[in-house]
Amino acid sequence: MRSTMQDAPMSIGDLVRYGSTVHGGEAVTTWTGAEPRRVSFRDTGRRAARLAHALRGLGVDADQRVATFQWNNQEHLEAYLAVPAMGAVLHTLNIRLPADQIAYIAGHAEDHVVIVDASLLPLFAPLLPSLSTVRHVIVAGGDPGGLAAEGVEVHRYDALLDGQPDTFDWPEVDERDAAAMCYTSGTTGDPKGVVYSHRSIWLHSMQVMTTDGMGMTQGDRCLAVVPMFHAMSWGLPYAAFMAGAPLIMPDRFLQPAPLAEMIETLRPSFAAAVPTIWQGLLQELDANPRDVSSLHRVVIGGSACPPSLMRAFEERHGITVLHAWGMTETSPLGSVAHAPAGSTGDDAWSHRISQGRLPVSVRGRIVGPDGKVAPNDGETVGELQVRGPWVAQAYYRDADPERFDNGWLRTGDVGTLSPDGYLRLTDRAKDVIKSGGEWISSVALENNVMAHPAVAEAAVVAVPDAKWAERPLVAVVLKEGATVEPAELRAFLADTMARWQIPEHWAFVEEVPKTSVGKFDKKRIRGAHADGSLKAVTVHD
Amino acid sequence: MRSTMQDAPMSIGDLVRYGSTVHGGEAVTTWTGAEPRRVSFRDTGRRAARLAHALRGLGVDADQRVATFQWNNQEHLEAYLAVPAMGAVLHTLNIRLPADQIAYIAGHAEDHVVIVDASLLPLFAPLLPSLSTVRHVIVAGGDPGGLAAEGVEVHRYDALLDGQPDTFDWPEVDERDAAAMCYTSGTTGDPKGVVYSHRSIWLHSMQVMTTDGMGMTQGDRCLAVVPMFHAMSWGLPYAAFMAGAPLIMPDRFLQPAPLAEMIETLRPSFAAAVPTIWQGLLQELDANPRDVSSLHRVVIGGSACPPSLMRAFEERHGITVLHAWGMTETSPLGSVAHAPAGSTGDDAWSHRISQGRLPVSVRGRIVGPDGKVAPNDGETVGELQVRGPWVAQAYYRDADPERFDNGWLRTGDVGTLSPDGYLRLTDRAKDVIKSGGEWISSVALENNVMAHPAVAEAAVVAVPDAKWAERPLVAVVLKEGATVEPAELRAFLADTMARWQIPEHWAFVEEVPKTSVGKFDKKRIRGAHADGSLKAVTVHD
Repeated sequence: MRSTMQDAPMSIGDLVRYGSTVHGGEAVTTWTGAEPRRVSFRDTGRRAARLAHALRGLGVDADQRVATFQWNNQEHLEAYLAVPAMGAVLHTLNIRLPADQIAYIAGHAEDHVVIVDASLLPLFAPLLPSLSTVRHVIVAGGDPGGLAAEGVEVHRYDALLDGQPDTFDWPEVDERDAAAMCYTSGTTGDPKGVVYSHRSIWLHSMQVMTTDGMGMTQGDRCLAVVPMFHAMSWGLPYAAFMAGAPLIMPDRFLQPAPLAEMIETLRPSFAAAVPTIWQGLLQELDANPRDVSSLHRVVIGGSACPPSLMRAFEERHGITVLHAWGMTETSPLGSVAHAPAGSTGDDAWSHRISQGRLPVSVRGRIVGPDGKVAPNDGETVGELQVRGPWVAQAYYRDADPERFDNGWLRTGDVGTLSPDGYLRLTDRAKDVIKSGGEWISSVALENNVMAHPAVAEAAVVAVPDAKWAERPLVAVVLKEGATVEPAELRAFLADTMARWQIPEHWAFVEEVPKTSVGKFDKKRIRGAHADGSLKAVTVHD
Repeated sequence: MRSTMQDAPMSIGDLVRYGSTVHGGEAVTTWTGAEPRRVSFRDTGRRAARLAHALRGLGVDADQRVATFQWNNQEHLEAYLAVPAMGAVLHTLNIRLPADQIAYIAGHAEDHVVIVDASLLPLFAPLLPSLSTVRHVIVAGGDPGGLAAEGVEVHRYDALLDGQPDTFDWPEVDERDAAAMCYTSGTTGDPKGVVYSHRSIWLHSMQVMTTDGMGMTQGDRCLAVVPMFHAMSWGLPYAAFMAGAPLIMPDRFLQPAPLAEMIETLRPSFAAAVPTIWQGLLQELDANPRDVSSLHRVVIGGSACPPSLMRAFEERHGITVLHAWGMTETSPLGSVAHAPAGSTGDDAWSHRISQGRLPVSVRGRIVGPDGKVAPNDGETVGELQVRGPWVAQAYYRDADPERFDNGWLRTGDVGTLSPDGYLRLTDRAKDVIKSGGEWISSVALENNVMAHPAVAEAAVVAVPDAKWAERPLVAVVLKEGATVEPAELRAFLADTMARWQIPEHWAFVEEVPKTSVGKFDKKRIRGAHADGSLKAVTVHD
């Protein structure tokens, strides 16, 4: 029996229409370092209509891809709205990736048009000749200068919009059709494209507005620090248009000092960014105090947030920190760490520093090393798998069966789920040591080794083992002048870890190799061990 | 281009699974007049599984209809969860309808099973022989006594659940399939069935949790006064299971005194009911003060809420009143009257007494007397039409083209929509007077006539007119001892109304006929005019 409910699709066109009329009086403010640019949601809707007409004029039709190479600003938001609403597909290019990866990604997605910020031309111009499918480049916020390439037309954003109609008859869409795409650069192999639908973006925006999501509300002044080329800026631009929350866009001013000035000047009530940004802001505020009292709550996600950082913001600045977990493949909102109702003190805190509680639309399960679904008992460790209407089931033109398990996304994150739905991550699946059918958390081992007074840093990787499949190897950096033997470190670990978890392979190194964002580069450590350049000693009791 | 998002359906089975695990520690409390009954969400989920097994045992399969004839209580909630989750269709029978209408409705829906509260058996037993499709009656909360009918098996609810398994493998469903149905008794013709889908209930529950909906949050102690047989108790039972909001169920104790006692004892933070209930509660609290300080906000809807009532709750009891609009055909949440962010004083108040702002999922438009879409300018009056994923597109086995306009629901409500999305209703479409291609609001006319010092009550209906199609007729009740001539009333109206809006037909009556809920019974007034029993004088200038 069918319901008698309407088959009304959820579409970005409706979202744009709603935000630019009902919430037309709200505004987008783009920071410029000096006088901010302010455009109402109403005028943003009009400019999105003009952009859509301009893109049609360039031949953008059906599901053609329109890429962006932009900071978080007014024009990028216009592309966010116009491109999916007109039925085309928005593709946000990550300006931080190496040139060859950007070229690969743009080619894989078959981008037809790229909208580029003028301030990014020095980065973009050398790339352009390698973007083989691109026929049009639109330069926003400045002069294209000498930008040129064979078979490519270069346009000025404002000139292209000039004289276009202020309204666009946004077409009806199938809600499961593509609206936007974002590539995630895996640790191995080529980057993978996640393709969001009108449906997934709409539902995700509702979730940002629910009390167990981010609770975004009308009038929240929302500072979107997280880049619009990174997991759709965590869905904030679309949700803000739905909720009627004024948007504050930092453009390229993401360093701690301008960020602090921007917060003092534009007075956001709500902001979202990765821990590194908040860490930098905290140090800046300590050095150069500013009035940041407008900020009531900030969402921190993207990687695990140190509890000390959360405490510092709350105790020193009265700002509530919401820890959240997600990934490009989950749109990205997976879980938000609200304390359970009625909990206080340490109990509340232990929940708030977890990755948070999965909402009803993100079903989670823990799959153990044996491939079996483990109980959600808060203790059994395994890989987190998720399922739901804004979770990916495949990559674009790449089914990647390694990543998808019968309708569930393998997140690659390892941890536990409690009976009341809280997620606590302990490691990445690729870093965990699979020893004799059990898992050893590399992160837990590192923390325990680093607790020894002689140790400055310790990184743990898995090395092959004939008997146990894998065993842990610890790369140790000693504090200046300190000495310690593996046997002593092993004895030290016996206090906190099970006997079979204690590593026998130890390497003493000058420094631990790190990635560009400062994380331990475990791939390089594994490589150095494999090619013999990292020497380890093996010690048994 | 298809998205790569999962095709994960939104289903009541997932909602039940989520609420009874992640929020398993929350509880449903049913008032009994004495010691309340308390059952955790976890056990409620288990009992729902048992009920599903029991219903399968009675032959309930596929999309068969399981009806309820129950108060708001634990067992009714179990049916809300079990029946749709198992893939069958829940049909809530309105216990307040006349017997012949209930028989019609149960037959039209082809109800196979009815679950009945024992306390309602005196009402139900005489009905049973007329329920031709019903094969099983399950009596909850007491003894079936001598209940019997030809071809009907009678069961005890608890006995039927005894020994059934605590889990049920809720089947995958198509999210657009029927989950529940509710009949609305129109003013003319037979009652009409609205069939909700898994999708519409899920989305509606999310909306109850959004900041521009009811903002229901985990730990909100939610008192569902609005009956579960009336527009799904405004979606509160499902939303509470999704949000983890403890539910407080009043059972049959809906009179002001027990309601006040229940609030003092069970301390809800949130409640929802029609104005009549709140009016009664307010009078009760004035007469017999109680501690109702746990209530932070209440939602009032179902019919327009007098601003004086809203003010009284806020000023005398510190309870924020949220005015809301909706109907059975809109699941029912249409709009909620939050004040715009930043507004204060009279400005905020003028928005809060409106019907509220339509959310993104409920598109609205105003259609004028000429059948054309009017601007949303807050001034142009017309019939409200709505569209969205939880709005009906037809009735069950009744396309009713009168009610549905090319994908839009004709609400039958007349008013304006402001540019910022606020709905202000002025009349019902059936009561408005269509005079010469323009509309005259019967409610505005009544209020203006009642402002005259000699008038106690005034009801306005349309009467046929050869030249203007319709003209208003005013039935006036004078205050004791007062006299006034139609000419004087017409002169009095000239201050507030346009000349062509001033009525020429006047009837002086002893009292205005009223419906069972105390509203003017305009059908009877029109009938009395048509059959000549209501005498009117006609006065021109």
